[in-house]
Amino acid sequence: MKDFLKVVTLEDAQTKLADHWHPKRQTTIISLEEASGRILAEDVTSKINLPPFDRAAVDGYALQASDTFGVDETNPAKLSRIGEIHAGKQPEIKVGSGTCVAIATGAVMPEGADAVVMVEDASEVNGTIEIRRAVSPGENVSEKGSEIAEEESIALAGQKISPQVHGALHAAGVQEVKAFEKPKVAVISSGEELVEFGKELQLGQIYDINGPTICDSVRACGGEPTHLGIVSDDALEIKKRVRKALSKHDIIITSGGSSAGSKDILPETINELGEPGVIVHGLAQKPGKPTLIAIIKDKPIFGLPGYPVSALMVFNQLVAPYLRELSGIPEPELGSVQASLTKKIISARGRRELVPVKLIQGEEGTLARPLRRDSGAITSLANASGYIDVPLSQEILEEGEIVTVKLYEGSELA
Amino acid sequence: MKDFLKVVTLEDAQTKLADHWHPKRQTTIISLEEASGRILAEDVTSKINLPPFDRAAVDGYALQASDTFGVDETNPAKLSRIGEIHAGKQPEIKVGSGTCVAIATGAVMPEGADAVVMVEDASEVNGTIEIRRAVSPGENVSEKGSEIAEEESIALAGQKISPQVHGALHAAGVQEVKAFEKPKVAVISSGEELVEFGKELQLGQIYDINGPTICDSVRACGGEPTHLGIVSDDALEIKKRVRKALSKHDIIITSGGSSAGSKDILPETINELGEPGVIVHGLAQKPGKPTLIAIIKDKPIFGLPGYPVSALMVFNQLVAPYLRELSGIPEPELGSVQASLTKKIISARGRRELVPVKLIQGEEGTLARPLRRDSGAITSLANASGYIDVPLSQEILEEGEIVTVKLYEGSELA
Repeated sequence: MKDFLKVVTLEDAQTKLADHWHPKRQTTIISLEEASGRILAEDVTSKINLPPFDRAAVDGYALQASDTFGVDETNPAKLSRIGEIHAGKQPEIKVGSGTCVAIATGAVMPEGADAVVMVEDASEVNGTIEIRRAVSPGENVSEKGSEIAEEESIALAGQKISPQVHGALHAAGVQEVKAFEKPKVAVISSGEELVEFGKELQLGQIYDINGPTICDSVRACGGEPTHLGIVSDDALEIKKRVRKALSKHDIIITSGGSSAGSKDILPETINELGEPGVIVHGLAQKPGKPTLIAIIKDKPIFGLPGYPVSALMVFNQLVAPYLRELSGIPEPELGSVQASLTKKIISARGRRELVPVKLIQGEEGTLARPLRRDSGAITSLANASGYIDVPLSQEILEEGEIVTVKLYEGSELA
Repeated sequence: MKDFLKVVTLEDAQTKLADHWHPKRQTTIISLEEASGRILAEDVTSKINLPPFDRAAVDGYALQASDTFGVDETNPAKLSRIGEIHAGKQPEIKVGSGTCVAIATGAVMPEGADAVVMVEDASEVNGTIEIRRAVSPGENVSEKGSEIAEEESIALAGQKISPQVHGALHAAGVQEVKAFEKPKVAVISSGEELVEFGKELQLGQIYDINGPTICDSVRACGGEPTHLGIVSDDALEIKKRVRKALSKHDIIITSGGSSAGSKDILPETINELGEPGVIVHGLAQKPGKPTLIAIIKDKPIFGLPGYPVSALMVFNQLVAPYLRELSGIPEPELGSVQASLTKKIISARGRRELVPVKLIQGEEGTLARPLRRDSGAITSLANASGYIDVPLSQEILEEGEIVTVKLYEGSELA
């Protein structure tokens, strides 16, 4: 068996990666219909005036404001109703002094009218409209372009197309937007013992957990994952699969197959695919020791540990920020919370450790309950709200101590 | 023109609704592959033991722990290496005292062995394995069922299938889950002046904004929206469209067409469709006055205001909680934040008012900047992070006052 991997800190790994890989955001033009949730790659301005015409802001009577000056309940203006304007129609009527037109909210103001009296402030008496309240010019009228003017800014580059923004873009007559391209990510699970989900397990076999979990996580970071399935520890097969992945994807994520076992041929195999090959082999933290980073054809290959809890933690720490950077998704808003530790934690001195915890909303505030730390513990995977990052220098965290819990995306307080 | 609608408070509207409508969650069995993001409708237990067999937790040598008792660097045990076990394979070898087997992480423990010595603590010298560190029985072995035992609980009813939970369910051999059904929601936009997105605008026309915005929002609350398009203010057409919606959907949402204009025929038309018909017509708040709630064939019809900002606010306040209840989605975690008001707000006394604000992360904390409150303001729609709920009794909020901002889903701090 060969020498074990040479570990580096996460920060050193990021620096090495930066020497070889310069992730660049790509953009794409998509129709607004398909743009929900995407991130804008450029500022968007309105194509139209909104409203595109002067329109009534209330139901009532369009008239000349000067006809109402000085009127009140006891001394109403009496105007002749010369027609009616519905929303969506072009008015063919002209309002002069002494006349008015019944108008619906949203309808185009008729020529000659400069204000609308609300329906509540008027009554029809024998075909004459009595106006009991004065209005000033422009009152109850939404002027052309008052909601958005043509060329006015609607949304900014980097903004997510939320339901609200989506609506505003629609309103502004925008039909296509330039958005950041979703990075294409190939996901490969490696290990002789892995079996595709749904098949019968033979002795010695377990289901592939990392494939679907990592695909979900890639999606949450704005990437477009393709699960290329399971490869056995066969150099030729691995080479074939990774080569295929490189041809069609921007980033390759493998899991398993990079610890120091006699069958761990992933690093050698990847090195045969091109320069510079493997640039990091081993992170100085727990979990994450058997992590590999390689660059082939200017594309990064992230080799995550095989244990699901470890794989997900290293994904969140190492890979997720690059995916979010590429897809334009901001770092999660609720990145971390303060919580009180329910149980003492003893960590290995001289090694950074990430301890999964479940957050509980107690009466005295938020509590962090440490979960099992053996790399395989699946219940930790399902129950963890996030993790505590215990630095190299720290060995003991006391019960009741206030700790910072970095949250998993989409995790909720119980 | 007929009398204006009779307004009630939101709470009264909810009470009236509760008299006539008893929303019940439906469940559905879906394959785990399609279950990402869904909400579990029942507790899930493991179908298998994980690991399904005793397995090596590290790369090293499987042996009898008793053979290592008392050994150290200077006095190693010397064992005969009788074979090698790879992950995924059924071992056909038996370990007796004085022998050991090279074993990979994740591989099945051979018969007779009860511990694994890490590869770092052993060396091969002329075909003999020298063990330099003692192990106790069970050391570096993951026992069958130690990660999950058969029938052990994996995830609970109400839990969201996050990437982590998805992985754990895969690991546990779960192939299908019972999840809450997504409520089917028909979305109809009403108004003569509305034009489908993408078409050329004629004078008097504007694009339909509410259709896509409400569909997005329904999706965010776990519902499955279908946009049934735009209807004009024609009684027959409205009746046809709503009847169609009732036949295939659980909830109908319309927008526009329910204020007091001469052409607002929605309430009458809906009343002709069945009993009890319209149960609420008008909310005592701003925005939201022209809101309608009806029940036909035990299904609710929510008639939202036509103005996009108003429609979205009333949707979030009135409709969203029911959709989340039905789909099992918890209320958004980051429901509200405290922020300092950048500008005085004068609200109408005697009416509840929802004021849209943009949140800004300032140096002295989070600031809330009030946005334009005229119902049509589209830029408010795109920029609002959330809103302040100003109660009936309150008239003035001072600059610098700390207010509670209820957040829109997916909104971010700028």
